Amino acid sequence: MFRPKIKVLDCTIRDGGLINNHKFEDSFVRAVYKAVSEANVDYMEIGYKNSRKLFSDQEYGKWKFCDDEDINKVIKGIKSNTKISVMVDVGRVDVEDVKPKKQSPVSMIRVAAYVKDIDKAIFLCNQMADKGYETAVNIMAISKARDVELTEALVQLEKECKANVINLVDSNGSLYQEPVEYLVKKAKSIIKTKEIGMHAHNNQQLAFSNTIEAIIHDANSVDCTIYGLGRAAGNCPTELILGFLKNPKFDIRPILDVISKEFIPLREKLEWGYIIPYAIAGMLDEHPRAAMALRDGKNKENYREFYESIVGTEE
Amino acid sequence: MFRPKIKVLDCTIRDGGLINNHKFEDSFVRAVYKAVSEANVDYMEIGYKNSRKLFSDQEYGKWKFCDDEDINKVIKGIKSNTKISVMVDVGRVDVEDVKPKKQSPVSMIRVAAYVKDIDKAIFLCNQMADKGYETAVNIMAISKARDVELTEALVQLEKECKANVINLVDSNGSLYQEPVEYLVKKAKSIIKTKEIGMHAHNNQQLAFSNTIEAIIHDANSVDCTIYGLGRAAGNCPTELILGFLKNPKFDIRPILDVISKEFIPLREKLEWGYIIPYAIAGMLDEHPRAAMALRDGKNKENYREFYESIVGTEE
Repeated sequence: MFRPKIKVLDCTIRDGGLINNHKFEDSFVRAVYKAVSEANVDYMEIGYKNSRKLFSDQEYGKWKFCDDEDINKVIKGIKSNTKISVMVDVGRVDVEDVKPKKQSPVSMIRVAAYVKDIDKAIFLCNQMADKGYETAVNIMAISKARDVELTEALVQLEKECKANVINLVDSNGSLYQEPVEYLVKKAKSIIKTKEIGMHAHNNQQLAFSNTIEAIIHDANSVDCTIYGLGRAAGNCPTELILGFLKNPKFDIRPILDVISKEFIPLREKLEWGYIIPYAIAGMLDEHPRAAMALRDGKNKENYREFYESIVGTEE
Repeated sequence: MFRPKIKVLDCTIRDGGLINNHKFEDSFVRAVYKAVSEANVDYMEIGYKNSRKLFSDQEYGKWKFCDDEDINKVIKGIKSNTKISVMVDVGRVDVEDVKPKKQSPVSMIRVAAYVKDIDKAIFLCNQMADKGYETAVNIMAISKARDVELTEALVQLEKECKANVINLVDSNGSLYQEPVEYLVKKAKSIIKTKEIGMHAHNNQQLAFSNTIEAIIHDANSVDCTIYGLGRAAGNCPTELILGFLKNPKFDIRPILDVISKEFIPLREKLEWGYIIPYAIAGMLDEHPRAAMALRDGKNKENYREFYESIVGTEE
């Protein structure tokens, strides 16, 4: 028996944009929107709403800024029940840039923040909620959060924040199913008025199983990306989640189509997925930035040396 | 606190041989043996002991037959505590080909069988045990086993079989953590005098997590392959298992080295890993043979058509 409350958020364009400075062609974004719409995915996260005062639109593509006009252009004419989501980072958004919900194609705004910035996240999230948006807070680097501070953050979120969903983000791809169970149960024990969600990274090929694990323990929101596209090792694949969930409304076939037509060619140009330096970063619970730097250089297959550089032992 | 009883069996050459008709160069097999030896992996499975009366040594490489002389040649001079394992299939081995343990470099012989062949497997396994080998039975296609028949097979194995280990094999890569928990607990409730092991396939990126799940429920033997090399989607990666297990005897670094030097170049020539048709076969609990045939043809990226051909619906 399926659980109708489970919502799927495809963040292919948003998380994938972290690999290419958000420079996806409109035709690609449109193909993804069409596929997730036909598949009946609940939400599609299309990018960040970052301030143009902080980031140059020479350096970054349009999905770093997500102007309403750009969104309207790529979704125009496509029949869809899929809601559009955008992400905002604490300290990187001009709140005035965000129009009231009624004037925007965006339905949901998600605030990404570390535990230490939870007060800022709540303040920002409530501003977005007051503009009429569905909202969420994504707690990043959850594997590094100190337990007592995470408890306090969750208590604050429950009491002070208007978010509809609190997402646990395994930024380092370091969790396996036992810590996921612990974290989801902990969050559920404190957060009673909002849903809990999971955003997993795939460094150790655990993004899908960690997402299943969160579902088993009653998380009702899951993030995924088509063919796992996303920063470094990428994310929980949308096609696997749709193959797993039993809700008859989901249709995997449009996702299979868009992988054949768009993602297989894209993978020739952009690198993501199971790659040993990302696996090493995951098992050592480190941010993938050092591994990403390695992959950009000429020693990209020197795995042992990279491992030694992280664990800090010289031979 | 680590569990000293957990044994790691690397079956890179044996399962990987299913992709290339067991035609690995001696230098490659030797590099793998050196790596798993330096990493202190407990067992290395090097191939099948199949009958030359049934299989041509023109068509198949030497690791389809695993003559003791060939094994001795590739392991010669390498310091190692890693024991050698070979696999035998019910009905495909000449028992006379297998010398007594004392005359052989092989330590363990594993019998692969479906539930329907469990009587034959027990008979063969006991013959091997009587020759002095450590033995195991690998129950293949466990996801397709009918529960009552699996119960009977497990009862027989416990009562009649001399095997040291009973391995649960997710041939189709279709299990996720809840069925793994069910199957391991079921096996442990019947099998009291032998260890339970897990051999997972990676169709849905669940091989590592299913192996962890088996460990959580007290399986003490785990199969893995370097960089996941293995038939179709491949297996649980050895490097991830060694990154996960806490036993200080394991050293991941020689495995990282051999991936850099041998497996990255090999992946340019041989295909395995997360590939959509294998994922589809996994989510539909089908053997990967149709997906493997697709990947050998010119329509190899026609995922939707392949999906329709399996679910049997015409549009």
